[in-house]
Amino acid sequence: MSVEGRTFTDLDVEGFLGAVHKLITEEAFVKGTNRGNPVFEFKQPEDLKTLIDFEIKANPSTHAAILEELTKIIKYSVKTGHPYFFNLLFSGLDPYSQAGSWVTDAVNSNMHTYETSPVFILMENYMFKKLTSIVGFDDGGGLFCPGGSASNQLALHIARFNRFPEIKKVGLYGLPRLRCYISEDGHYSLKKAGNYLGIGEENVVTILTDNSGRVLPGDLQQKVVADIEQGYIPLFVMATCGSTVLGSFDSLPELQDICRRYNMWLHCDACYGGSVLLSKQHRHLLYGIERCDSVSWNFHKMSGLPHQCAALLVKNKAILLEANCSKAEYLFQADKFYDTNYDIGDKSIQCGRKVDVLKLWTLWKAIGDLGMENRINKAFEKARYMVDLLKKSPGFRPVLPEFQCVSVSFWYIPERYRGQEETPEWWLAIHKVAPEIKRRMVEAGTLMISYQPMSSKGFVNFFRIVLHNPACNQGDMKYVIEEIDRLGKDL
Amino acid sequence: MSVEGRTFTDLDVEGFLGAVHKLITEEAFVKGTNRGNPVFEFKQPEDLKTLIDFEIKANPSTHAAILEELTKIIKYSVKTGHPYFFNLLFSGLDPYSQAGSWVTDAVNSNMHTYETSPVFILMENYMFKKLTSIVGFDDGGGLFCPGGSASNQLALHIARFNRFPEIKKVGLYGLPRLRCYISEDGHYSLKKAGNYLGIGEENVVTILTDNSGRVLPGDLQQKVVADIEQGYIPLFVMATCGSTVLGSFDSLPELQDICRRYNMWLHCDACYGGSVLLSKQHRHLLYGIERCDSVSWNFHKMSGLPHQCAALLVKNKAILLEANCSKAEYLFQADKFYDTNYDIGDKSIQCGRKVDVLKLWTLWKAIGDLGMENRINKAFEKARYMVDLLKKSPGFRPVLPEFQCVSVSFWYIPERYRGQEETPEWWLAIHKVAPEIKRRMVEAGTLMISYQPMSSKGFVNFFRIVLHNPACNQGDMKYVIEEIDRLGKDL
Repeated sequence: MSVEGRTFTDLDVEGFLGAVHKLITEEAFVKGTNRGNPVFEFKQPEDLKTLIDFEIKANPSTHAAILEELTKIIKYSVKTGHPYFFNLLFSGLDPYSQAGSWVTDAVNSNMHTYETSPVFILMENYMFKKLTSIVGFDDGGGLFCPGGSASNQLALHIARFNRFPEIKKVGLYGLPRLRCYISEDGHYSLKKAGNYLGIGEENVVTILTDNSGRVLPGDLQQKVVADIEQGYIPLFVMATCGSTVLGSFDSLPELQDICRRYNMWLHCDACYGGSVLLSKQHRHLLYGIERCDSVSWNFHKMSGLPHQCAALLVKNKAILLEANCSKAEYLFQADKFYDTNYDIGDKSIQCGRKVDVLKLWTLWKAIGDLGMENRINKAFEKARYMVDLLKKSPGFRPVLPEFQCVSVSFWYIPERYRGQEETPEWWLAIHKVAPEIKRRMVEAGTLMISYQPMSSKGFVNFFRIVLHNPACNQGDMKYVIEEIDRLGKDL
Repeated sequence: MSVEGRTFTDLDVEGFLGAVHKLITEEAFVKGTNRGNPVFEFKQPEDLKTLIDFEIKANPSTHAAILEELTKIIKYSVKTGHPYFFNLLFSGLDPYSQAGSWVTDAVNSNMHTYETSPVFILMENYMFKKLTSIVGFDDGGGLFCPGGSASNQLALHIARFNRFPEIKKVGLYGLPRLRCYISEDGHYSLKKAGNYLGIGEENVVTILTDNSGRVLPGDLQQKVVADIEQGYIPLFVMATCGSTVLGSFDSLPELQDICRRYNMWLHCDACYGGSVLLSKQHRHLLYGIERCDSVSWNFHKMSGLPHQCAALLVKNKAILLEANCSKAEYLFQADKFYDTNYDIGDKSIQCGRKVDVLKLWTLWKAIGDLGMENRINKAFEKARYMVDLLKKSPGFRPVLPEFQCVSVSFWYIPERYRGQEETPEWWLAIHKVAPEIKRRMVEAGTLMISYQPMSSKGFVNFFRIVLHNPACNQGDMKYVIEEIDRLGKDL
């Protein structure tokens, strides 16, 4: 390792990297996850700009100056591993996947060819054998994608190729309109995929859900039939297993029946809920998943890895290569000295591809299947506990009567609104409660929970708390209740 | 930080992470870049499978067992930071960007909203201001993408949106065919993008190049005119600045004239060559870049960062959001407590997006503009030296008479073929030389250089050596000549 011709030793790079390691350990791993410290020191953008010296100058900085800025960067960042961070579908700070990530960067490999990335290609092959076997695909395959949206998008692409392989060469011209279906609680990535892949957002049709946020198969059936009558081609259904807000799981067998009837591809967006498959106790939520054609499963969500670790699994192993290959001769030479089936790069629409497998492998290897399973079971126990707690706590009202996944949604009713008639005006007042509490919460730095409105819940803002951070315990959930009450009581 | 409810301290996670840090420092940073050690210990896939214990078991592993496997993972991986690794468009092992990457993982943020990622959103805004100003876009914007292929793909998408905004809603149906143009030496990602975006590979038209691999504007002009006559709509030209194999730079002003004439979007694929802009001495190679509509620029290539750090820059700042937004109400709420213009996530087709800016910022801050410039100048000096050396060395023949970028291509002619008439049979024999030397090179572990055939060079395999690794010096280039000669002399 050298910088501008000076060696590692000349510049005391080793000392610098040791100091960065110490900084990360102390500030992020220890202090950043300590309940006694804030989850976030919020600053408005204009203020934050003055606190960190973002400016890059012509001349080098000293190691001391860089360390000072890195310290501030950690200080003013949200502590997403903190036990009081419940804001998003990712949380936690796992040491094993961090270690895997460091080794990934130090090796700085690239997933296209065996000659460049022998270890990680074998590891990825091993991992996809394991993952497809967990899903129940007999001869499935997969690919790590840069996130869940990219996985869902790629699934739509291969579904389209599967039905109309000629699109690869000639494009969409001359075809009738293709239609895709997703529940109104499903993720917006499919709408973006419709835009991106040239199918059009309008051709991503929204299907109604029941009160718990599960898709209504009857509505799907009706809309598919209506589309066929109007000359559209129904192509793709995206089931949601672990919906973004309510954590609901669509009924896969019912969707499978409809998809078989109309020759549609069934993709399961289990970006959030996929890790439930690791639990014998809870995997029934994804009952029938082995009959889907493809599955998205993010390990940077419920399994607690750092971004990004998003798998797309396909039932038909061969289709990724068929759909995506372009046989670049400078990279995928046929006259190599090893079995070029290990050159997996042409399966992807990327060329260079970051190694995402090692951080997953390192964690999984470290804690074993049982450790991975235990995380999920613990998260579900916390969700059950949280729903019970909400029901017992004055002013708190779960949005759903039972927990469905490891996220729990609820309204908070400030004291002066309790016990009143729930008129539209009353709900409008409640709608304004969550954003105000959020503002106070962030200013206090004591908690991070998201809120959102939902059309199916009358557009009234409610909180969503996500509970898979292994660092969080039952005491923390009591703290959440008390803290929201403290922040919002007077509203 | 905690694992399964046990704290950081209980498990001696701190000790484990310290050991991983030590392992990386010793094995990857020090030994892995030492000329006395091999660049690669090649094993055939079946052998490598027996050397690393990939299998994940039900029960946890000890820290010692994980460290043992991580050690072997580094041992059997290619040392892409080694001074004798010249194989690909990335190389080197830079300590500052490694440090930035560690902090990125420790903070584990997400680029969608200011409330989640305040520091990195401001940093990304700062960086894109700097990058667009270097390119010469007065009011440009940008986005980090998961690699260069994704950047080129996104550029095509926004170009299409710019010309036909209705495609976002309704898709490509009912339009005439759109056409895209790229030189025969340009990157295959555009063909993949044609497939992916529903435009079709056939509608990605290949333009001839001159002997040095630069696009022939006359051929573009002719093909555009012919396409218009046949009812196609010419949409998009991808100029190549730093072609994958020969490192050639297309003439941007000439392409710009044609694009203006036919109302086409000019995208510059400077994934490889973009960093040349940092050098006052060499940036003339990208003369006219400020008149392009968009630019792809990968910092994990010539600037030496670990994967992935790929910027897409656009002249019209607003277009990324317009082309991609879908206004998800659970994430981009309008009733937030800060200026939601800082919620930049909806500019992207991703939802969660990895932080790619910090590793770039840390390196750049550490060595300054002058350090970044110096790297490029040094790499060009090495390329010039290498071409001179090739010309002086018996049996070596540069593919191009002059160097064009920091990669240099050459044939090696074993002793018994020298001074002979260069018949088709002779070239066929030479075609087989590079793969055989490569096989020997990898078995010996003494060097990593890629080879490839090129249609414009008679499909005869030649070597390409990429010279931007700051760790590599003139002595290493002499070593390359000697080593290839040693390996191939008897062929």
